[in-house]
Amino acid sequence: MNADIITIGDEILIGQVIDTNSAFIGSELTKIGINIRQILSVSDNETDILNAIEKSIEKSDLIIMTGGLGPTSDDITKPALLRYFGGNLVLHQESLRVIIDFFTLRSKSISERNLKQAEVPDTCKVLINRSGTAPGMMFKKDEKLVFSLPGVPFEMKELLTTEVIPFIKTKFELPFHLHRTILTEGIPESSIADLLKDWEENLSEDIRIAYLPSPGLLRLRVSISGNNEEYLNYKLNNEIDKVIKLIDEKHVFGYDHDTLEQKVGDELVRCSSTIAIAESCTGGKISNLITSVAGSSRYFKGSVIAYDNEIKTDILNIPYEVIENFGAVSEQVVSKMAQGVKDLMKTDFAVATSGIAGPGGGTDDKPIGTTWICAISPKKIVTKKFLFGENRERNMIRASFAALNMLRNLIKETI
Amino acid sequence: MNADIITIGDEILIGQVIDTNSAFIGSELTKIGINIRQILSVSDNETDILNAIEKSIEKSDLIIMTGGLGPTSDDITKPALLRYFGGNLVLHQESLRVIIDFFTLRSKSISERNLKQAEVPDTCKVLINRSGTAPGMMFKKDEKLVFSLPGVPFEMKELLTTEVIPFIKTKFELPFHLHRTILTEGIPESSIADLLKDWEENLSEDIRIAYLPSPGLLRLRVSISGNNEEYLNYKLNNEIDKVIKLIDEKHVFGYDHDTLEQKVGDELVRCSSTIAIAESCTGGKISNLITSVAGSSRYFKGSVIAYDNEIKTDILNIPYEVIENFGAVSEQVVSKMAQGVKDLMKTDFAVATSGIAGPGGGTDDKPIGTTWICAISPKKIVTKKFLFGENRERNMIRASFAALNMLRNLIKETI
Repeated sequence: MNADIITIGDEILIGQVIDTNSAFIGSELTKIGINIRQILSVSDNETDILNAIEKSIEKSDLIIMTGGLGPTSDDITKPALLRYFGGNLVLHQESLRVIIDFFTLRSKSISERNLKQAEVPDTCKVLINRSGTAPGMMFKKDEKLVFSLPGVPFEMKELLTTEVIPFIKTKFELPFHLHRTILTEGIPESSIADLLKDWEENLSEDIRIAYLPSPGLLRLRVSISGNNEEYLNYKLNNEIDKVIKLIDEKHVFGYDHDTLEQKVGDELVRCSSTIAIAESCTGGKISNLITSVAGSSRYFKGSVIAYDNEIKTDILNIPYEVIENFGAVSEQVVSKMAQGVKDLMKTDFAVATSGIAGPGGGTDDKPIGTTWICAISPKKIVTKKFLFGENRERNMIRASFAALNMLRNLIKETI
Repeated sequence: MNADIITIGDEILIGQVIDTNSAFIGSELTKIGINIRQILSVSDNETDILNAIEKSIEKSDLIIMTGGLGPTSDDITKPALLRYFGGNLVLHQESLRVIIDFFTLRSKSISERNLKQAEVPDTCKVLINRSGTAPGMMFKKDEKLVFSLPGVPFEMKELLTTEVIPFIKTKFELPFHLHRTILTEGIPESSIADLLKDWEENLSEDIRIAYLPSPGLLRLRVSISGNNEEYLNYKLNNEIDKVIKLIDEKHVFGYDHDTLEQKVGDELVRCSSTIAIAESCTGGKISNLITSVAGSSRYFKGSVIAYDNEIKTDILNIPYEVIENFGAVSEQVVSKMAQGVKDLMKTDFAVATSGIAGPGGGTDDKPIGTTWICAISPKKIVTKKFLFGENRERNMIRASFAALNMLRNLIKETI
């Protein structure tokens, strides 16, 4: 079964916005065994939108469109769909209620434009958008399905995963495509590829592997397709076990939709422990990751972002001589940062970072990317030096994930 | 003049890779006044590639393709181009030299596959790729130009900016396309649309406007095209001035590629002042934004992430009774947080947040999304209550941007 993805918006064509929606949709459809024929981006122009629908519907059974459903004059996907599929605009009561609630909850006045967003062609099935004001729509032509979703990524994602994908699964008979993703931190793609070389060469044809790198993390997706779900599950688990045995378990932090920050939280909850963080080069990134997890207040007490050395001495109680003798980016300072914040916030665990994120501040001795990380438990202190790259943003992210994984391994071995 | 962009690769369709090449090409072509008709991504399949070229060449004068030029068996853009434009594969001596140098410099052995990359159809003009092994190619059909560039982003960027764009500029007489983007924080799309309604209705036809929302921020892009650059510049600036007068200036934080965190930094540098941050509900996000700016150590001293109330009392010196009487999410507590961190870190300015990010913790009185923000200067203290939405991640982002903009306005009016 083929699908086309159509994303609508001048901002995509002129390169002001990178089209991340297509990648998300492509990935979700691939997971359920749908083949993506093409991705097309067109402008906010009725003729172009109509042409795109017409051509895609000839070739594919399923079309997912995003964008052009906002309240302003440049949003013309709805009129285009109305023209293509016919019908009349009618007020959709449930969507109207959602829009009114949306503004009431935020104590904001509703404009005429927003109310008009509840109007939909009577030729479509409405998909209620609970995270925004533009309802999604589903149209049918012959046996082909056309979905129109809002362009705001989190609204699109919510509708795609809770409405579109489940509907498609019930509607079409698809072969089983099973996936399992192994999540790792701290090993480069080429090293994992070397470790898995023999295993990969002996894989049977129904199994595919994909390396999905992002700064600091590498996801390893193993996929299998066929008609017997039970057998596929057995075989997939079997291969996953083999892969895991080939990689040092300290690097493997989870599977599928796990996040490193969630796994750290899980470990802390499991052993009823608390944590504090002292950040220098990561500038709040680790704290931000930890608190992105709902319920993190159960274990996270707080952080000190000690960017200036004065904060390191005055608040984290690091003797000034230690900083002067060894430099702020040193094993001595980072371990005193961890100890300092642990004492200050009276927690069981702590983690600290100190490094040169760049673009300035590098020396021959300590080039940009040099980073010290320390994790501390009630019984043990672990420090490690890393040499990341030249890019400030990537250095901050890689240091944050390295710190979280060091912490995760320390908690695991402690209790 | 119209252009089509075609990106080739299964990894794009299955969502394994986000297509950032199109955005870069779209933005560079737009800058020189070329209208992007569409962006199409197709698989590594000869028929699909040939169809894509055929259809694009009917409608557009210029086609930029990327991808499918690598050394492995799934790279079939070159055979497809050979079939479409005819000719024979010939060895391109200069490209061969570049490839040999490339491997010699990296002390790596050259494979037969890599040497074959120097073979090109004799119907094309070769664009020497100095940062990789796949040469770029230019084909001509009637008066239409087709460029095929490597898919590796930095190789593509180099060839596009040093070869393709300069060539196009000499070849075609292009109109000017100018853009200016106004960046705002804290006004919903529909409210701005209402403010600009009359202005929009009276716009001349050569001017276009686009609303580009993201959590907490809204970008407003005004575009103009024509032949007289000086006049266009004058007219665009004139329209931008009109828009700015219609929006409360507190909401407008910058233009084009500015960021709110950079603008806060600029203000602090301008008045040689320092800042400290106390975060509760934003959990490190504000600090992370501030430190994402290179050189932020000039003004940012540090932060206390006071997630637990004990941190608020013990480190930020907030009397326990204040928290007990008014609750942690209150005007009283947030202003004491700001004052507390300012005193602790001896800075000129401070900002603090306390809110209910969700998904738990909401009450009838203080539903999820309730957030207090306080900004403090040497002379003044400003507090404001916000009611964001239900989504934890968005609440954290919106609160962070609201805090940064409050701070920016306070610094501006202080000094």
